[in-house]
Amino acid sequence: MKEIRTLNILGDVTSKVVRCQDGENLYRILADNGFEFSAPCGGKGLCGKCLVKILSGNANPVSEYEKSLLSAQQLSEGWRLSCHVSVSADLTLEVPQKNEAFILTSGEFDADAEEPLIVKEHIALDPPTLTDQRALLNRLFDTLPGGQRRISLDLVRKLSQIAEGSNYEVNVVYDREDIIAIEPGSCPIRAFGVALDIGTTTIAAYLADLQSGQIVATHGEINAQSRYGADVISRIGYTIENPEGTAVLNRLVISQIDGIISKLASKHNIDPSEIYGITIVGNTTIRHFVEGLETSSIASAPFAPAHTFGYSTFAKKLGLTTTNAKCYLLPCVSAYIGSDIVAGILASNMHKSENLSLLVDLGTNGEIVLGSKRGLYACSTAAGPAFEGANIKHGVGSVTGAIDSIKIENGAVSYTTIGNQPPCGICGSGVLDSVAQMLDNGIIDETGRMVTGTELVIAQGQQGDITFTAQDVRQVQLAKAAIAAGVRVMLKRMKKSPGDIEKVYLAGGFGSYLNKMSAVKIGLLPEILYDNILSIGNSAGAGAVKALLSQRHKDQCDEIASSIDYIELSNSADFTEEFTECMIF
Amino acid sequence: MKEIRTLNILGDVTSKVVRCQDGENLYRILADNGFEFSAPCGGKGLCGKCLVKILSGNANPVSEYEKSLLSAQQLSEGWRLSCHVSVSADLTLEVPQKNEAFILTSGEFDADAEEPLIVKEHIALDPPTLTDQRALLNRLFDTLPGGQRRISLDLVRKLSQIAEGSNYEVNVVYDREDIIAIEPGSCPIRAFGVALDIGTTTIAAYLADLQSGQIVATHGEINAQSRYGADVISRIGYTIENPEGTAVLNRLVISQIDGIISKLASKHNIDPSEIYGITIVGNTTIRHFVEGLETSSIASAPFAPAHTFGYSTFAKKLGLTTTNAKCYLLPCVSAYIGSDIVAGILASNMHKSENLSLLVDLGTNGEIVLGSKRGLYACSTAAGPAFEGANIKHGVGSVTGAIDSIKIENGAVSYTTIGNQPPCGICGSGVLDSVAQMLDNGIIDETGRMVTGTELVIAQGQQGDITFTAQDVRQVQLAKAAIAAGVRVMLKRMKKSPGDIEKVYLAGGFGSYLNKMSAVKIGLLPEILYDNILSIGNSAGAGAVKALLSQRHKDQCDEIASSIDYIELSNSADFTEEFTECMIF
Repeated sequence: MKEIRTLNILGDVTSKVVRCQDGENLYRILADNGFEFSAPCGGKGLCGKCLVKILSGNANPVSEYEKSLLSAQQLSEGWRLSCHVSVSADLTLEVPQKNEAFILTSGEFDADAEEPLIVKEHIALDPPTLTDQRALLNRLFDTLPGGQRRISLDLVRKLSQIAEGSNYEVNVVYDREDIIAIEPGSCPIRAFGVALDIGTTTIAAYLADLQSGQIVATHGEINAQSRYGADVISRIGYTIENPEGTAVLNRLVISQIDGIISKLASKHNIDPSEIYGITIVGNTTIRHFVEGLETSSIASAPFAPAHTFGYSTFAKKLGLTTTNAKCYLLPCVSAYIGSDIVAGILASNMHKSENLSLLVDLGTNGEIVLGSKRGLYACSTAAGPAFEGANIKHGVGSVTGAIDSIKIENGAVSYTTIGNQPPCGICGSGVLDSVAQMLDNGIIDETGRMVTGTELVIAQGQQGDITFTAQDVRQVQLAKAAIAAGVRVMLKRMKKSPGDIEKVYLAGGFGSYLNKMSAVKIGLLPEILYDNILSIGNSAGAGAVKALLSQRHKDQCDEIASSIDYIELSNSADFTEEFTECMIF
Repeated sequence: MKEIRTLNILGDVTSKVVRCQDGENLYRILADNGFEFSAPCGGKGLCGKCLVKILSGNANPVSEYEKSLLSAQQLSEGWRLSCHVSVSADLTLEVPQKNEAFILTSGEFDADAEEPLIVKEHIALDPPTLTDQRALLNRLFDTLPGGQRRISLDLVRKLSQIAEGSNYEVNVVYDREDIIAIEPGSCPIRAFGVALDIGTTTIAAYLADLQSGQIVATHGEINAQSRYGADVISRIGYTIENPEGTAVLNRLVISQIDGIISKLASKHNIDPSEIYGITIVGNTTIRHFVEGLETSSIASAPFAPAHTFGYSTFAKKLGLTTTNAKCYLLPCVSAYIGSDIVAGILASNMHKSENLSLLVDLGTNGEIVLGSKRGLYACSTAAGPAFEGANIKHGVGSVTGAIDSIKIENGAVSYTTIGNQPPCGICGSGVLDSVAQMLDNGIIDETGRMVTGTELVIAQGQQGDITFTAQDVRQVQLAKAAIAAGVRVMLKRMKKSPGDIEKVYLAGGFGSYLNKMSAVKIGLLPEILYDNILSIGNSAGAGAVKALLSQRHKDQCDEIASSIDYIELSNSADFTEEFTECMIF
């Protein structure tokens, strides 16, 4: 039998003592015990993002890869890549602080007074008499605007338990189809909802007052699934290799949602039971994980997912425990056009515009939508997660301390960071600037080749230099070529030219911070559109909030999803051609 | 601490060794351990129906009540009323055989080819291709007649798990609203449903082949809730006295339904998972117990139940474990007009008739419906359970061996029994005959007084004489007065006379066996209607089967329930007057 080792793990929020077998991989132990990394490779030893500091105890010798990645000082301080450590002694180690993801708090939203998605209403029932013996539920439906709805037996039970004691005055929460909650009439008439934008990397959450439409709290977190891979394909891979993988990723996202709901509720000092509705958007893979559905068919041709319809159900049925709100999973379009894009379209209003608009969402994939009220076309390009800071040596998400803009003048690099905190890495907009500035200053040529050296030092980080490497340039080049080629193919299909586009909406955390000039400089977007580029921030989150506040907007999501014409690029000859052309800066 | 006693209980089906504390009540111990009695009083020591035979060990002394009820021979054999026994020593005892309830197996039913309630269909989906990437569920709904329906995530999961392996050929079971089941296309296209008539005393169950409409198996059982009282009021009393009472009665009926489903499936040699639909009818209290709803408001004025709507849900949500069929709880009308009556009306077709019909269901209560296609009136009279054999000294339900007809000629009593078995007691139709024959032979006078003696010996039973007592006559007198007065009041309200009634439907096990002449003789029904009386057997069960086979018939139940005009008799002055008049035979 193998020896048992004891690990004393000091984390940012929690510390834990964990016992494991001799020889176990440290990354896996940490991941299984809730210590999270933004590790794109999912612990495969490739991305160099799972740093830990060993404070005492002897681990296995430092690998060549670690030596190539970590400075002598880092190594002397005990820094290791946890995925390269196999436990062979009792250890005390520190897991570095995980920064709270920075999310965009969108502007104010309006309540839909005419047709809200969810209504909470005080209703006085006629008390029963010998000449009016209608059942309690009949009384409720006879009084309720719109009459009969679906109701769970639990709520019928509750109605009969509280009605007499509350003098037949009850508060009823309902939407078009269901009774969502019943409370004694003496409870406050206030109602909240949560809009969740579950990105591959980041989860953004908004707590809305359903009556005023105001966002009263926001919260952002790194998607806990990140430890199973930075992109959805890695996570699908995990589920294919592990029979329990889908269940693991399902439970992970569901318990993270539960945690987010608790945090939002406590931020605004309400009880989670006062949250009656939750809209959820995300890409198709993420939505499958939320629903506990197999994703393998998404990863290989012909890319047919299990389920893309808009889907409503109660929180408990999804496995959530903090609330029994009604959950609205907004519709997806195809395997690679998810409900985040549908919500983004809703937020941009491009589906109502007379003129042609272009929506580009540069997340882990690059989704592109082109169209107007007369029709929408969408495609998805395997742009890679470079613009989310992944696959970039010192890339990070849009977290506090991320370098979000860079300028090179006379060989000197200056930069800004999110929240003006000490730099911890480079996020998407910083990545874009790096390439544009390197091009501008002749550090790279138009083929992307670095003229001198193999990397550019951008800043001094706490764990050594933050640099931008030749390999990083290549990642950006591939990403921008995919997007630019996607736009060209779509314009061709619609028989339009770049000049016909009235507005370009750039969505996502990246889109909000990018330097438009840099985007045009590297050829991500046609130069002619420079003046038309609008950053619309987290449009997926904004769309989720809009749908949460309005039945009409939620209905529009279904209309958008069913009307979009999806263009598959993987079997398109002209895409390959355009892609090759677009590789040149 | 009290001493622990050991009971060796020998039952008909199971025997058990049970340990209890000194002083515990034997009836309660037996009930809690699954040994059932048809004890109307629910163990309160009043009804004398919970006989057990103590084979060894000393119990507490025989009570005065037991002495008045049991013969010297019975006492010498060790017979006791279990509710009068408190355990003070180790005992070995026998719990007498519980007869399987006798239920009516109705005739053949027709499948509704045009609009069945539930459809099972083989569907070949278009396999996905690069140019047709629709999600699996979209493919299903694009192919399914009637398009999109509600579907659980479990079934979406199943669809995605089986589709590829079954060459995209699947069997889909659905109704108008829901996808009920999805199976690989290679499974047999056969489908079954169960119609359940849950009476206060007896549960009747029918297994139907949903494609042919044929009843392929039937099963009847005493309602296991009987141990908590013969009538619904006693059972509601139990839930008022015990905080867990509603949950206890809910679990009891649900687990009994599970058992019945297993038995039906095994009788026809099918798997319970091939049962896709279950219609359930019962009185309003029973339906509340099935739904786990509080019933206290049913027991006291103004008699407003929690829920009377037709309600559809999946078996698992009701707590059933044998199948995940869709369950259709047919609608009730009011606290005392349940879905059994609605189903009875459906079975009789009186709601479609041009002419006036009268439906009388003599169960534990007496429900009366009067009307035609132009409108239906209903009332419920507290007739008491005399016609179900309860509250009658030697009364029994419609079980094998029950005396179901009696004739007295020249002072000699002759009788028949159900199944021609040795007599075990008197069921409803025998009770009716007893009174009619006693009247006819001058044993009682028109006021119900027994001219000589206090009881009439009907038969020799295995446990002593089966008699009909003066007290029994009084019970029948009260019951028949309630029914007769109810009919009179309803006729008056409709400004009709008995001669306007074209047909009289007698429903229930009692109705099937009663001697029409006896009914008219004692004044239960007006003499003028003698030729119009039709026994329609278990019309509640027949209605439940009809609804199971046809969406149209199920819809008609909702129409019937919402159109019935309920007449409350308890605050009606003319009812009291008529009741007094009808007390005379």
